Amino acid sequence: MVEVKDKPSVDTNGRRQEQMLTPDSLVMSYGEDEPLALDCGVDLAQYSIAYQTYGTLNADKSNAVIVCHALTGDQHVANVHPVTGKPGWWETMVGPGKPIDTNRFFVICANHIGGCLGSTGPSSVNPGTGRAYGLDFPVITIRDMVRAQAHLVDRLGIKDLFCVVGGSMGGMQVLEWAATYKDRVFAAIPIATAARHSSQNIAFHEVGRQAVMADPDWRGGRYIDEGTQPRKGLAVARMAAHITYLSDEALHRKFGRNLQDRDRVTFGFDADFQVESYLRHQGYTFVDRFDANSYLYMTRAMDYFDLAADHGGDLAEAFKGTETRFCCVSFTSDWLFPTEEMRTVVQALNAVAANVSFVEIETDKGHDAFLLDEPELFDAVSGFLSAAAQKRGLEPNDHEI
Amino acid sequence: MVEVKDKPSVDTNGRRQEQMLTPDSLVMSYGEDEPLALDCGVDLAQYSIAYQTYGTLNADKSNAVIVCHALTGDQHVANVHPVTGKPGWWETMVGPGKPIDTNRFFVICANHIGGCLGSTGPSSVNPGTGRAYGLDFPVITIRDMVRAQAHLVDRLGIKDLFCVVGGSMGGMQVLEWAATYKDRVFAAIPIATAARHSSQNIAFHEVGRQAVMADPDWRGGRYIDEGTQPRKGLAVARMAAHITYLSDEALHRKFGRNLQDRDRVTFGFDADFQVESYLRHQGYTFVDRFDANSYLYMTRAMDYFDLAADHGGDLAEAFKGTETRFCCVSFTSDWLFPTEEMRTVVQALNAVAANVSFVEIETDKGHDAFLLDEPELFDAVSGFLSAAAQKRGLEPNDHEI
Repeated sequence: MVEVKDKPSVDTNGRRQEQMLTPDSLVMSYGEDEPLALDCGVDLAQYSIAYQTYGTLNADKSNAVIVCHALTGDQHVANVHPVTGKPGWWETMVGPGKPIDTNRFFVICANHIGGCLGSTGPSSVNPGTGRAYGLDFPVITIRDMVRAQAHLVDRLGIKDLFCVVGGSMGGMQVLEWAATYKDRVFAAIPIATAARHSSQNIAFHEVGRQAVMADPDWRGGRYIDEGTQPRKGLAVARMAAHITYLSDEALHRKFGRNLQDRDRVTFGFDADFQVESYLRHQGYTFVDRFDANSYLYMTRAMDYFDLAADHGGDLAEAFKGTETRFCCVSFTSDWLFPTEEMRTVVQALNAVAANVSFVEIETDKGHDAFLLDEPELFDAVSGFLSAAAQKRGLEPNDHEI
Repeated sequence: MVEVKDKPSVDTNGRRQEQMLTPDSLVMSYGEDEPLALDCGVDLAQYSIAYQTYGTLNADKSNAVIVCHALTGDQHVANVHPVTGKPGWWETMVGPGKPIDTNRFFVICANHIGGCLGSTGPSSVNPGTGRAYGLDFPVITIRDMVRAQAHLVDRLGIKDLFCVVGGSMGGMQVLEWAATYKDRVFAAIPIATAARHSSQNIAFHEVGRQAVMADPDWRGGRYIDEGTQPRKGLAVARMAAHITYLSDEALHRKFGRNLQDRDRVTFGFDADFQVESYLRHQGYTFVDRFDANSYLYMTRAMDYFDLAADHGGDLAEAFKGTETRFCCVSFTSDWLFPTEEMRTVVQALNAVAANVSFVEIETDKGHDAFLLDEPELFDAVSGFLSAAAQKRGLEPNDHEI
């Protein structure tokens, strides 16, 4: 009945766990003398950040772009994914001649602290115990993720960034970068995001966490030590979340009430409808590439995000004195991060006379639109970056010559 | 961490199971010679329907109103609930002097076939095996529920109904009554419903079912025989569903990002936010009053509902020749059954020149609005019923004299 498999058909989960030990990525490691000061009060010593780069850093180190990945994304933006074997998650956006043009820009993407693709997280070994952290890993925030990225940029000898860009949770990091490191961000592109996580979004995350924690194979977070994996719980969490990434219209257009490989309903609990089959597939493929505890930590970081609250309740205060130029993007059918949320950001930026453009893109693809083939998005990012690069005095790329 | 209790603090679940054996309701039982012919092809013999009535049937039996309950509702419309001890779920709507005035009308509400408050369902004893049906219970449809209600009405000696009324899944039954028993329904009030379940709604139901079935205590549906109960899975299912019953605005208004009994976040996975605490409460109180398998069956019935498909793909065909007068009600912030869905129903009714009025009520309360204190809803129902009763030649109540 339940199609979530107890074991993956190929050992992608094993391949993912390998990525935590020997990532197919560059790795920056920090010793006990360079702890990451976390918002929760813990100094996290001995941590690593796994990251990818694309393009070449120019002589005056002025062409660096940080791409911030979303909740379940990772650093494999524009290369074949080492676990799934699929193309990078933003190959439409990042690459030679693409809107974020790697012929021109040096692109960095780091797996977030707390993640599960090589950066230190709850599935890493706790040096204090020799066992996986599990829930002993400190709860991290969006600002902690950005702090870790800033340390990485420091190590790379880059003083300031040409641009910070990302969607969803990545967009939260863009806003946090712009607020916390005002003089290090020349341009910022927050996409399909908000300055705080809404009540409804916290509620959906809580459902996902409860689904994971309800799975007896979660073992109070100690499943790695105990040789289990909360596959069913994590699959249910992903299924619930996945609905929020689409739109009612997109689901209707893609699936409607179409049946899956049958002419009539079976009067049972199999996946009669295509949408059920699709959702089950989303659930159980996710389990092979993502760590359940990292899922808890990443969702919690989003829930805690409230940029205005961090600045005395006034969002404009977060951006006061900014000289960053912003390109804010939202999508009409995104009900997870509706345009209204982005409008609040834009209003705060306007209140401090920031240089800001705002693009609302008409689409029925929902929140996921930022990952999909959306020509208007590519045009907006491309146009904004070209103008900013010119302002910054970056060499034009071949296409522009 | 997980607050879903393994055992209820008081034995409400035991009280619920008692309701299946000796309901605090009237019960109509059907023997082997009077099977219920189900859409799946099974003839269900030896079944019972538990029901409540309010008010008095008049001499010519012309004042009967059927209230159809929603997914997790039951027959206890306007009396103290025998399991929870709480007021009936529609006491604001049904009672002496209320919009559905029991001084004037004879109100009947039956627990649906497949339910868990006294009508035969998956937790009933299968006479063929002497054990609980579990998943051997046949999958039922909205039409099957309506058929069972029609048999009940027959037994009560009522030829035709003054009105059929209900919200959500209850509204689906109202539409089915009007389509299947055209000459037995004088007036119909479908509220916050649709003529078919959307792709997104099927998706949410599938998440809930997978959450239940992922719980090892579900035991392939045989949990009653095995003395377990899939409490955590059912609680997660309820939490996910509950979000869809509210609106983003209502959640924001009620909870926003308010913290629960604390001044600052705890950097952990407790219910820091009020919305988390509220949702967990919704989850684990539900488990005490509802059967997990019934939840699977009720959600499946809604998923299968597609009134147009049952009439050659043309919704108008379903209502052709109707003389029923309709009052269709939707709510602006209901994203589970948006106004657009009701508009489709109204257009189909208009296409067959039916007598139809359509009320869209402005509210931020979401789908749940039909259960809440909504004066505009009460006014609409009250006004419609008074006019219809006059047309039907029913005695006015004291208030109108």
